[in-house]
Amino acid sequence: MPIQAHSGSAKGSLRIIPLGGQEEVGRNMTLFEYGGDIVILDMGMMFPEEDMPGIDYIIPNISYLKGKEKNIRGVILSHGHLDHIGAAPILLRQLGYPPIIGRDMTLAMVKKKLEDFEKGSAQNLKTIRVKSVEDKLRLGKFEIDFFEVEHSIMDAVGVIIKTPDGTVIHPGDWTMEKTPDGKRLVDYSHLSKLPSPRILMLESLGAIVTNPSRTTEEEMYHNLEKLMSEATGKIIIGTFSSQIRRIGHILEYAEKIGKKVALDGYSMKMNIDIAKELGYIKMHKETLITVNDLHKYPENKVVIVCTGAQGEGNAVLSRIITDNHRFIKVKKNDTIVFSSSVIPGNERTIQRLKDNLYRKCDNVIHSDIMDVHTSGHCSAMDIQELLRQVRPDFFIPVYANHYMLKEAEKLAVRIGFRKENIFVMDNGHVLEVQKGGAKLLPKKVDTSYVMVDGLGVGDVGQVVIRDRQVLSADGMFVITVILDSKKKEVVGNIQITSRGFIYVKDNFDLINETKRRVQKAIKDTTSKKTSPEKKFIEDNIREVVGLYLFQQTQRRPMVLPVIIEV
Amino acid sequence: MPIQAHSGSAKGSLRIIPLGGQEEVGRNMTLFEYGGDIVILDMGMMFPEEDMPGIDYIIPNISYLKGKEKNIRGVILSHGHLDHIGAAPILLRQLGYPPIIGRDMTLAMVKKKLEDFEKGSAQNLKTIRVKSVEDKLRLGKFEIDFFEVEHSIMDAVGVIIKTPDGTVIHPGDWTMEKTPDGKRLVDYSHLSKLPSPRILMLESLGAIVTNPSRTTEEEMYHNLEKLMSEATGKIIIGTFSSQIRRIGHILEYAEKIGKKVALDGYSMKMNIDIAKELGYIKMHKETLITVNDLHKYPENKVVIVCTGAQGEGNAVLSRIITDNHRFIKVKKNDTIVFSSSVIPGNERTIQRLKDNLYRKCDNVIHSDIMDVHTSGHCSAMDIQELLRQVRPDFFIPVYANHYMLKEAEKLAVRIGFRKENIFVMDNGHVLEVQKGGAKLLPKKVDTSYVMVDGLGVGDVGQVVIRDRQVLSADGMFVITVILDSKKKEVVGNIQITSRGFIYVKDNFDLINETKRRVQKAIKDTTSKKTSPEKKFIEDNIREVVGLYLFQQTQRRPMVLPVIIEV
Repeated sequence: MPIQAHSGSAKGSLRIIPLGGQEEVGRNMTLFEYGGDIVILDMGMMFPEEDMPGIDYIIPNISYLKGKEKNIRGVILSHGHLDHIGAAPILLRQLGYPPIIGRDMTLAMVKKKLEDFEKGSAQNLKTIRVKSVEDKLRLGKFEIDFFEVEHSIMDAVGVIIKTPDGTVIHPGDWTMEKTPDGKRLVDYSHLSKLPSPRILMLESLGAIVTNPSRTTEEEMYHNLEKLMSEATGKIIIGTFSSQIRRIGHILEYAEKIGKKVALDGYSMKMNIDIAKELGYIKMHKETLITVNDLHKYPENKVVIVCTGAQGEGNAVLSRIITDNHRFIKVKKNDTIVFSSSVIPGNERTIQRLKDNLYRKCDNVIHSDIMDVHTSGHCSAMDIQELLRQVRPDFFIPVYANHYMLKEAEKLAVRIGFRKENIFVMDNGHVLEVQKGGAKLLPKKVDTSYVMVDGLGVGDVGQVVIRDRQVLSADGMFVITVILDSKKKEVVGNIQITSRGFIYVKDNFDLINETKRRVQKAIKDTTSKKTSPEKKFIEDNIREVVGLYLFQQTQRRPMVLPVIIEV
Repeated sequence: MPIQAHSGSAKGSLRIIPLGGQEEVGRNMTLFEYGGDIVILDMGMMFPEEDMPGIDYIIPNISYLKGKEKNIRGVILSHGHLDHIGAAPILLRQLGYPPIIGRDMTLAMVKKKLEDFEKGSAQNLKTIRVKSVEDKLRLGKFEIDFFEVEHSIMDAVGVIIKTPDGTVIHPGDWTMEKTPDGKRLVDYSHLSKLPSPRILMLESLGAIVTNPSRTTEEEMYHNLEKLMSEATGKIIIGTFSSQIRRIGHILEYAEKIGKKVALDGYSMKMNIDIAKELGYIKMHKETLITVNDLHKYPENKVVIVCTGAQGEGNAVLSRIITDNHRFIKVKKNDTIVFSSSVIPGNERTIQRLKDNLYRKCDNVIHSDIMDVHTSGHCSAMDIQELLRQVRPDFFIPVYANHYMLKEAEKLAVRIGFRKENIFVMDNGHVLEVQKGGAKLLPKKVDTSYVMVDGLGVGDVGQVVIRDRQVLSADGMFVITVILDSKKKEVVGNIQITSRGFIYVKDNFDLINETKRRVQKAIKDTTSKKTSPEKKFIEDNIREVVGLYLFQQTQRRPMVLPVIIEV
């Protein structure tokens, strides 16, 4: 039973509700409720899983907010990555456009996202700009402060959410870089002075990353720079369009060594446009060229940065490899760099991509060979370090699979935290913080998937998904029968149409025998009942044909009888 | 153009042809041809890729052997894993049961495989037993010798294929274990004394495994033993059924510490049965119990070894977690060990499996936490070490993706090999070795996929697969129309049946408008031509409806018009 929509939180108690729907708890959206006021952190989208064919993406389920729209005081956006802002176009509209709060880059990206989704919709946005981490904000009964964090995109910001009953500290996505002499770049110890109880909600994706030899940004940049300056042909760097800081660095370095850069990939160009406009990438206009001007420069004077390093079929890198790119052809002496991690599930596709690249090019560089990528997320040791600096009263590991959160709990216990002060939550769990204590409420809010497919939001449910799974496994088998509604006899020929099952043309015997059995099934049904319902005849055909086809082929296509009475 | 079937190899030239069809070159099957005689190494199966919905498995394409069946002198089987013997039931039958050659465990597994596939078929087998690596064999013009290799299954054997024009050395799958004092367990230097030209075909899957801190078998066993002896509840170890040596070790150690072992998983029980019968696992009968007897023993006295560590929906571990296992329920103080690697593509499924296990159990152990698995394959350094020991004249890296083979080539060049003596082949490539030289022939043999789906072998082709992909993405939309064949007018109602697209019941407007457009499309078509063909009308409906549905939903279901003329 989900919590009732209108119950609200008790006066003088802070409720914390991670939303989402997928495994990574709270990554896409978190609700904070205090005395009737609601503040939202992030509105991200998730990518569908393998067993959701045809689904474009998934957005957080906001049914808990139905009827409470007027209580929403604001939506804070921690940074501009899609898993934190991608659902904003749909959710902001559904919630009547509450004000959004964020730094420049983040706000600019949300605005662009809205315009891409529906032209003109960005004019509905009400924005509150965070000019510096010194800014303070009041949203209803909440006091909002900010702090610096490091992440792979500019303008990521940590959030402090103060209520009389508790202070939430939430860095969002974060990493901990070290300088070459081993010092941390950002210090969090000032957060330990915030009022108690301090509740640290901490991205713990790195809880299982215990290898101390993590590549630093510095090492990665050093390797990329070396490759760029030594390349004797053109150099193609595949990375995520979200790696805006890295792409900016590549642009600046290319300018330094006198090379031109062409970006390819819609989202990448868009992101870099925004970063340039805001002055976050410092370069001459002439350094950036378009792909159709590449031929004007010597090959050893150009750098191409593009998307598609995950092997996405229609992305730039795939088009280059299959010779379907109008302006870029790979040569043996080119250098191709995968400056990206492998998103779980894409392993085999990327292996095939590498196979094809190695066939065309002698210098393919990826993480197995050289450190040309580093994660923008924390490690196990970073988690412990941050816990030591902030010294929270309660620790809520978030933004990771349940099993990683449990490992984060162990990390905390190992440095002296008491287990009863750690809360491993699921999406939809409600943590109530009151009078210095915190407890999980017994009831969860609804977090079932809201799937987006084409223009449909939430209209594809489990039935449609299951049908797609069945159709994909063994195809379909449509049997069309015209039935004389009085005599209950088949008129004319039974027609069989099949797709994804077998070649009908190669299997005349199977088809003819199937037709014979359909005839018989109809006769059997109509002879038993004087006036059987159409559905009854259809069910009978489905059963008889399904069984026969399985016996003959060991396959289970979706059998679909269509009976038309005349 | 494939090589013509009857051409054969020139007299006095050795032809080497890796077959398969998938990325890992030669892993599943390799042909050797000399003066009209043919010897085959292995007959393995491959698992389908993500874009092959519904396919059970893939077998090597043997169209090159059509018409040459009588030339096949024997099929040597390097070891009993499915990627080396799994296609034997189908291929041996197709080739008229040539003799198979292997060690005891391998032959027993093939026999079992044939019986599982078709009862009674094992009696067709002609077997030649390799009793020891000292055995020598003549197969037509080939002389066959053997040598010891290490792998994760018993009775793996390396093969030497001698012809007057060249000596092929092929270890099959292999790893290089070290003793605690750093010595190699198996030495290959005697192979350097074989007659020249020596052609080393070497599994090079490990070419990109450059991390020197590979877990040794010894470390892994030490960790597993520690977990087994310290477990205060029952211990459940998930692993591959193919890890026969490891399961044997677990059985023997359990006996030593007075615990009982229950195996669960059909293939695992089958494999261990065979190993026990052959005396490869030394234990008392009473150590092994059945899962339905588990309740008779104290929880801290039992070890369960089961399949399903890849998250396969119907396998044992998944059934345990979803409380669908009749005899095994997980408790908080149990210990669950993932003694397995992650097969590429299964990452997210396994993460979900771990999430659910962590919810039920406080002691879940996997490779992120402790070294409880080690690969049965070589590393980059092992490849270099073996090359140094064997000193081949020609090096053919095999059993890996093209990009890994290219990296293996680099490894060889780095220790002094000349690039022109290294051949990175694709499946279907033909290497001709003659008079001390070797060259790739310009034409490849056919290696297109042969897919097995249910009882069908090779009857599912690209068209069926493509239909399944379309059906899975956006479902289907069947339009049934009865047409008066004379008047060319629609009789009665147009019927719409849809699956995997949208809920028809929620979308009456869309359906009604579609019907209206179908009516109009038919009228437009029939008014233009006096007697249009049915196919012409169908194409028109498909186009009009496809466009309309896409405009309305941004989805592209498979539109299937069925016109019945009366």
